[in-house]
Amino acid sequence: MTDFAELPILGILGGMGPAAAVDFQQRLLDTSIVTRDQEHIPAIIWNHGGIPDRQLAINHLGQSPLQAMLVGLKVLEQSHVAKIAIPCNTAHFWHRDLQQHTDIEIFHMVELTVQQIVKHYKFGEKVGILATQGALSTELYQRELAKYDIPYVIHAEQVIEQELMPAVYAVKRNQLAEAGPILHALSQRLVDAGASYIILACTEIPIALHAVQSPILKISFDTTQILANTCVDWFYE
Amino acid sequence: MTDFAELPILGILGGMGPAAAVDFQQRLLDTSIVTRDQEHIPAIIWNHGGIPDRQLAINHLGQSPLQAMLVGLKVLEQSHVAKIAIPCNTAHFWHRDLQQHTDIEIFHMVELTVQQIVKHYKFGEKVGILATQGALSTELYQRELAKYDIPYVIHAEQVIEQELMPAVYAVKRNQLAEAGPILHALSQRLVDAGASYIILACTEIPIALHAVQSPILKISFDTTQILANTCVDWFYE
Repeated sequence: MTDFAELPILGILGGMGPAAAVDFQQRLLDTSIVTRDQEHIPAIIWNHGGIPDRQLAINHLGQSPLQAMLVGLKVLEQSHVAKIAIPCNTAHFWHRDLQQHTDIEIFHMVELTVQQIVKHYKFGEKVGILATQGALSTELYQRELAKYDIPYVIHAEQVIEQELMPAVYAVKRNQLAEAGPILHALSQRLVDAGASYIILACTEIPIALHAVQSPILKISFDTTQILANTCVDWFYE
Repeated sequence: MTDFAELPILGILGGMGPAAAVDFQQRLLDTSIVTRDQEHIPAIIWNHGGIPDRQLAINHLGQSPLQAMLVGLKVLEQSHVAKIAIPCNTAHFWHRDLQQHTDIEIFHMVELTVQQIVKHYKFGEKVGILATQGALSTELYQRELAKYDIPYVIHAEQVIEQELMPAVYAVKRNQLAEAGPILHALSQRLVDAGASYIILACTEIPIALHAVQSPILKISFDTTQILANTCVDWFYE
């Protein structure tokens, strides 16, 4: 039992949404190069979709999800996980609050993504941010990109409200064929507005783009994959 | 927070293998008819691939997985899950031992599958069991089918050892394109031997058959899906 008990465990604070947490786990499987079950990253996933809606909370239209997220954090903590991943960009608005409640490192998906961009960035390029209303209004990505003086393009508030948000909620209803073309078109419009790359800054977005095999994926920073890569690098380093 | 705190949580004792536990979660998502995140089944998944190999243990070639499974059971118990699902057929050899350690009901995948078969069964038909060496040698499905006098066909031990087991371990290495045709052919040979239906009695098998879109799926009792249906029926009833 020595090996089994000594393996560090990855905690996943999921539920935002439940499908994104499953997609994230699939990325971990696909990114890990293993020859048998025993080599995979051991993980405990708290995948509770009942967390209050993050978008409504940021818009002061619903209760804060923080208390519910802290319930999940407690479950992961008492299960002795070594690191925590949250496969939801908007939830990172509460990253600092969550981190203040635990000594376990919570990977920061937004910082990790922008660090990847910095590695590939060439002067003069613009980055498109495809994100929810909540993530955009809290400027999660805008502030992080500004630290490195990287210019970005985003959609107008009305486009987000009328086109992007319905597509994201369609993914949450598992209507990928409906959401995919909308999210592809919205990405393309950011390219038309000058973006060299697109940050898929909501973990529902790559699910739909993969379902329709969107070519936008080739010029995307896929935040789910970047978080998975970080976990794989941590575990197998 | 009332709704959130009152929702029953499904515990998933995974890791056998890790990919099967993710496939099972995807089935839960796909089988649940929901309009938003908050309507999904809340789940806590202990997905620890480090559990000692079940096949080796049954063959007295490795340590028992029971102690490791009990660690997972404890994590789920202290997280106050309401029911437990184990998306691994062979692991059900230890179902009774696990159930003796907890008051929380652990769904019995083998019994649930055979109950489904009984509903569809017509006198004279034979059922093919496509299972691992461990599941076959412990007669998990043979005994359960015998309770209802349902005749079955299985492969010879040598075929299991030389063809099925390498394919199952290939799924565990994520080599689905390699495993799929082998598992399809093995299913077809059970049909040729008189089977009207095939029990996919190892949760790695449907992953590979889906990857190659095998027509065998149409005449299969997919144990992963049957377990998912049971969880969905329990939660939404």
